[in-house]
Amino acid sequence: MEFTAVSHEPKYRDSYALDAQTLEIRVKTKKGDVQHADLIFGDPYLWEDEQWVKHSKAMHYSGSSEWYDFWTVRIHPLYQRVRYGFTFRSGQQTWTFTEKGWYNEPPKDTDEYFCFPFMNAVEVFRAPKWVEETVWYQIFPERFHNGDSSLSPEGTPPWGSKPPTPSNFFGGDLKGVEEKLDHLIELGVNGIYFTPIFKALSNHKYDTIDYFEVDPHFGDTDSLKSLIDACHKRGIRVMFDAVFNHSGFYFPPFQDVLKHGSESKYKDWFHIKDFPVKTSPAANYDTFAFTPQMPKLNTEHPEVKEYLLDVATYWIKEFDIDGWRLDVANEVDHTFWREFRMRTKAIKPDLFILGEIWHDSMPWLQGDQFDSVMNYPFTEAALDFVAKGRISSHTFAQRIAHILHQYPSPVHRVAFNLLGSHDTPRVLTEAGHNVSKVKMLYLLLFAFPGTPCIYYGDEIGLTGEHDPGCRKCMVWEKDQQNRDLFAFLQQLITLRKQHSSFSPQADLSIEHADADTNLLVLKKTNNNKEIYLVMNPSFHSQSMNLSFFESTHKETLIEEG
Amino acid sequence: MEFTAVSHEPKYRDSYALDAQTLEIRVKTKKGDVQHADLIFGDPYLWEDEQWVKHSKAMHYSGSSEWYDFWTVRIHPLYQRVRYGFTFRSGQQTWTFTEKGWYNEPPKDTDEYFCFPFMNAVEVFRAPKWVEETVWYQIFPERFHNGDSSLSPEGTPPWGSKPPTPSNFFGGDLKGVEEKLDHLIELGVNGIYFTPIFKALSNHKYDTIDYFEVDPHFGDTDSLKSLIDACHKRGIRVMFDAVFNHSGFYFPPFQDVLKHGSESKYKDWFHIKDFPVKTSPAANYDTFAFTPQMPKLNTEHPEVKEYLLDVATYWIKEFDIDGWRLDVANEVDHTFWREFRMRTKAIKPDLFILGEIWHDSMPWLQGDQFDSVMNYPFTEAALDFVAKGRISSHTFAQRIAHILHQYPSPVHRVAFNLLGSHDTPRVLTEAGHNVSKVKMLYLLLFAFPGTPCIYYGDEIGLTGEHDPGCRKCMVWEKDQQNRDLFAFLQQLITLRKQHSSFSPQADLSIEHADADTNLLVLKKTNNNKEIYLVMNPSFHSQSMNLSFFESTHKETLIEEG
Repeated sequence: MEFTAVSHEPKYRDSYALDAQTLEIRVKTKKGDVQHADLIFGDPYLWEDEQWVKHSKAMHYSGSSEWYDFWTVRIHPLYQRVRYGFTFRSGQQTWTFTEKGWYNEPPKDTDEYFCFPFMNAVEVFRAPKWVEETVWYQIFPERFHNGDSSLSPEGTPPWGSKPPTPSNFFGGDLKGVEEKLDHLIELGVNGIYFTPIFKALSNHKYDTIDYFEVDPHFGDTDSLKSLIDACHKRGIRVMFDAVFNHSGFYFPPFQDVLKHGSESKYKDWFHIKDFPVKTSPAANYDTFAFTPQMPKLNTEHPEVKEYLLDVATYWIKEFDIDGWRLDVANEVDHTFWREFRMRTKAIKPDLFILGEIWHDSMPWLQGDQFDSVMNYPFTEAALDFVAKGRISSHTFAQRIAHILHQYPSPVHRVAFNLLGSHDTPRVLTEAGHNVSKVKMLYLLLFAFPGTPCIYYGDEIGLTGEHDPGCRKCMVWEKDQQNRDLFAFLQQLITLRKQHSSFSPQADLSIEHADADTNLLVLKKTNNNKEIYLVMNPSFHSQSMNLSFFESTHKETLIEEG
Repeated sequence: MEFTAVSHEPKYRDSYALDAQTLEIRVKTKKGDVQHADLIFGDPYLWEDEQWVKHSKAMHYSGSSEWYDFWTVRIHPLYQRVRYGFTFRSGQQTWTFTEKGWYNEPPKDTDEYFCFPFMNAVEVFRAPKWVEETVWYQIFPERFHNGDSSLSPEGTPPWGSKPPTPSNFFGGDLKGVEEKLDHLIELGVNGIYFTPIFKALSNHKYDTIDYFEVDPHFGDTDSLKSLIDACHKRGIRVMFDAVFNHSGFYFPPFQDVLKHGSESKYKDWFHIKDFPVKTSPAANYDTFAFTPQMPKLNTEHPEVKEYLLDVATYWIKEFDIDGWRLDVANEVDHTFWREFRMRTKAIKPDLFILGEIWHDSMPWLQGDQFDSVMNYPFTEAALDFVAKGRISSHTFAQRIAHILHQYPSPVHRVAFNLLGSHDTPRVLTEAGHNVSKVKMLYLLLFAFPGTPCIYYGDEIGLTGEHDPGCRKCMVWEKDQQNRDLFAFLQQLITLRKQHSSFSPQADLSIEHADADTNLLVLKKTNNNKEIYLVMNPSFHSQSMNLSFFESTHKETLIEEG
């Protein structure tokens, strides 16, 4: 077998406690190399007759990515500690892999083995339980509904009368959201992720001017309180957007630095290279993505840290928000996020902390920082498979397996899965305006471990290219909404709530993924109840043998296309 | 090439900032597979003419373990952020490896690449600078010197008159250490690691009774203050042993639980399974290594945490100690250690935090917990090679390369390297009483990146099997000391201080490692000065061609055997 392909990252990606009693351990081998894998394990201190007391437990094959097979096992170490290694059967041979290398048979000395020293309860990855039961809805407030035109910026054109541009306004506001909560209830969602609502210059509000003030075009603290109360009364959780990587250009401390230069008491709040501060030809201070309007905050500075942590706790204490989505979370230091978690969870233990990270996020998902990240790797795989037809069902299945083995499994239970956001083209546009494809994408979204998020308007068939196109005004005229798509989503949400085998607790497995036919069959299982999802993204009639599932009780829950 | 062998763990083992400007990136490939490796990198936000602006830099081959070749490169991202991938030349073909997989040529979209989002200064791994310049000396106080026989336990036999047992005493104390500081100064060491000195029952004191009191057999706060002052005056740093995983059986809170059971206010300070608490036939509470005398502390409990953090800060504030060595550090939760670091470094920023971990310690070396760990993997490799003759110089070189690529390179600058301790047989015993082998082992120890530690008595040729054998009384009669070995160690320490190419800042490389002859040639380089260490562990006369080094100025610094 190919020894070099085998890897195992202990106490990080590949071994972690599920609870104070259960340890999950994973290892990967080169695809097709291994027919059987066992975990060899024992308490580090338990010896009898000068022999280490070790046990063996078969691992189960848990999927394959493009290059690897994955093996997973759960054990319950009696004394919460374990040394372990792996034996693999490859053809006629058996090999043992430990922290120290490869052996013909399991080594005798515990020192050779991988170590999970102690399953301290505090280290169990714990996201708020309510998140698993949540179906999210993302609202870009400026474009959702104009509930109070007296707040709208001067010269605001009629709702939806023009295409969205990077700088125009349509007057969406908090009262507008509250007025339209019926729509959300009808759809069945129970969590709202709001892009920023604090005072800022732009329509997207990612250039904060005042972190303690509601944007006056959106409303005030009264309208916000009223909206959050209304949400909570109707069982909807509320998540805000924390833009802590950078401030806006008109954030008073930055203005003070512009004005007073090196004399400003805020000069260390940013990363200023030299004085006087200038914005052209290039900013001489760190920015987000070379945008002079977004000076990067120095989150290592004690005052900045204190200021931002005050912001974080203020909105929880005063407005009882349920979650923070962290903008550009990867560019802010880990130390800040650890303190952020400690301080916010101290006042609201079941606060949800969601990081915006598009790439591999393991360094933030060790339990000390975020509960979850935005699962764009899922988005990309799903769009490539169904919307764009770039990859086969077989490749899609491999991408899924890769994603599911990239983080400890408890992380996936609260993964924030999405098909699009204010930062991507809309799903219907990605799918070439093919509603059937969009439905199939939603089926994948709801089948995937974690929580689904619907971007406002996607449920009624809004279209739009990349920003600013994807930020169109919501369409409220029912005859201009795709009610069929809306009904389909309603059905999925109901299914998730009512069918245990489609619930957040159900396991997902890939039953069939054929590179030739592109047919994909997923199985969701919970408490011995199963649901099969058969997908034919070619949308040409194809027949397949469904004999792989045998059931005493069969029922077709959804049939489309 | 073998794609499956290639791995890269970003922002963890394989990419990390050396300072706020310099990023070091490493990747491993299957041994012999790749002739050339380049890093492909660019700022995530820098695009020109709709093309991502990317650069390429050759990586250098930095060693081989048994199965892998390692490649390393340093870059200086202008805006402290980078997306990157690797291209490999293997035979006639070139391949690109990114976070998303393998390509024939570098992909165009930044999303495909690995990400180091921002080099936040606070995340740079920083151990105290003084540690690099330290040569440690480990003292087991009960066995070093009896300076005040009035403190000795009743019936203490004459110094060294009996072999050490798990339970006997010889009266070593703090005054004894102070009286013998000349010996340390003569040797040249400048840091002492003391095994525990707090009130405890046993001779080793790992079963603490009172964390705030000096063991009465060792002295009192006056003798401790006097000793620490004397050390500091003579340029010697002092590190204490923090036994926080477990207390002793006679720790008053545990005694209270024994007495009052579930009524005790300390019942949650430990991990009690049921009441009443009993010790036989098996303890019904968590212990260290099934030792009922060592009940595991519940370091998740706020009171316990506060108590132990008080201990940690008390000895720094009141006695100005310079370091804490953390006993059984791996079994205590990460959350506790993060708080430990924050609280202790807040009052003494250059405190050294050293964890006792024998296995892979990456989860503790991310900058948020420890500065260093005890480098037993080095110990094992060095003993296997020189002392036990179990592995060839070639295999030793592979083990070294593995160790050096296991953690970010800044970690190695303060690695706590040792050939033995109170927990292992003594090095001279391991070497079959062959002093020449021991000298060669010390040469390796001093050549290795990090700081060397000498276990008391090893410098004058003490012998001893595993505990209790390795805890003999120090021999002070010069005619019974191996002064030749002592002089050799003096020479090494002087060399380390005086020769820049042998200093802690010098780089180590393996110039020659031959499986047949077992000859090993190491090179230490600093500021274009080089030193070659030629080792012949067979101790039979062998000739080798030294033409690989050419120098205008040659000088033989040490010649032995």
